Amino acid sequence: MVIQDQAKAIVLSSGGLDSTTVMAMARREGYAIYSLSFNYGQRHAFELQAAAHTAEMFGAVRHLVLDVDLRKIGGSALTDDIAVPKGRSTAEMAARIPVTYVPARNTIFLAYALAWAEVLPAADIFIGVNALDYSGYPDCRPEYIAAFEHMANLATRAGTEAGTRIRIHTPLIRLSKAEIILQGLALGVDYSKTHSCYDPAPDGAACGRCDSCALRRKGFGEAGVADPTRYK
Amino acid sequence: MVIQDQAKAIVLSSGGLDSTTVMAMARREGYAIYSLSFNYGQRHAFELQAAAHTAEMFGAVRHLVLDVDLRKIGGSALTDDIAVPKGRSTAEMAARIPVTYVPARNTIFLAYALAWAEVLPAADIFIGVNALDYSGYPDCRPEYIAAFEHMANLATRAGTEAGTRIRIHTPLIRLSKAEIILQGLALGVDYSKTHSCYDPAPDGAACGRCDSCALRRKGFGEAGVADPTRYK
Repeated sequence: MVIQDQAKAIVLSSGGLDSTTVMAMARREGYAIYSLSFNYGQRHAFELQAAAHTAEMFGAVRHLVLDVDLRKIGGSALTDDIAVPKGRSTAEMAARIPVTYVPARNTIFLAYALAWAEVLPAADIFIGVNALDYSGYPDCRPEYIAAFEHMANLATRAGTEAGTRIRIHTPLIRLSKAEIILQGLALGVDYSKTHSCYDPAPDGAACGRCDSCALRRKGFGEAGVADPTRYK
Repeated sequence: MVIQDQAKAIVLSSGGLDSTTVMAMARREGYAIYSLSFNYGQRHAFELQAAAHTAEMFGAVRHLVLDVDLRKIGGSALTDDIAVPKGRSTAEMAARIPVTYVPARNTIFLAYALAWAEVLPAADIFIGVNALDYSGYPDCRPEYIAAFEHMANLATRAGTEAGTRIRIHTPLIRLSKAEIILQGLALGVDYSKTHSCYDPAPDGAACGRCDSCALRRKGFGEAGVADPTRYK
């Protein structure tokens, strides 16, 4: 009997609701998980704690945390001293790109994933972007992801020599937050251990009012399941 | 009379022959220069010293050096403890992707340039890639650059809200090394202050035999001008 090597997948993980669900999905598809997180000058460390827990929960072969120098570039409420907006409706969120947008963040994160994919090697990269509840970020749209994948296959040995194609998987891209939650629960995700809030209390409790909290709360409500998030 | 703001250009700079020539070209075109260099675990610091000198020489408004965590990813003779190949012919260089290739390096560097372009804002990014004397790197080909530019315009506010298009300028892409040198000399570039060698002596003298030195030497020879490089 020939034992095939288990295919490797790099999963971009923020320890949030979306990326944790993505990791559960990649695991169910049988991939060996290589978890990739970024220390990018977030104003709090709860994301990285949650990401480490997620990697452990899904038996990641490796959990790599890279330092990414976004503070020197600036331009976002998530890395700079700009107030995080609170209490906005989803219509307000969709109306324009918010100040919590981190310039070119997904492009930078996917570029590092691509580098790691070449080295491992791995052909599959998973990212939890979402085009429905996407909160107005341009780099969460399907046409952006398709363009990145095309570029990635021209950028690398994989696309050039080996005949393998790099694939960017976005299993959440067409799902509502409620659908994401229901699929994650079916896969055993413990959402009490995930962190989504942009502006948590010093003890890690979620603010409940930033865009990320609002989308998460609305998702649990629409899914008709109890929200296990600890709010301040 | 209306005084127009001077257009800003981000120039990726390694302090080498190619990127220094690109900066001279961007300057001649009238752009205000924003120089961007990376500390990516190169085995030596001479590149960064040369990049700082280049930025000063061309009156850069800012010279930003970002730390990029490529060593944790590995996979290259330029960041890992792998021998740099010496004495190869250009035919040998072109035959396959060399061990000095840094996985997805240009994608990571251009992603950071894109982030900075959004924040400044700037629409123009210059990079000194070269498809003729390119030493076998997949991310130096015109089709790769076109794909990155397309992706960049879907990734960002610029491509989404403001109606400005991000442009990736590659003025060297079709030039031979000799042509690059002749154009740079016409623009006043002092190549004795640039650094190309992958494996310099402790005092910064070039090895003269790595792929980068070989292409540089050949370029000066074919241009018929004296090579001001200090070899060990």
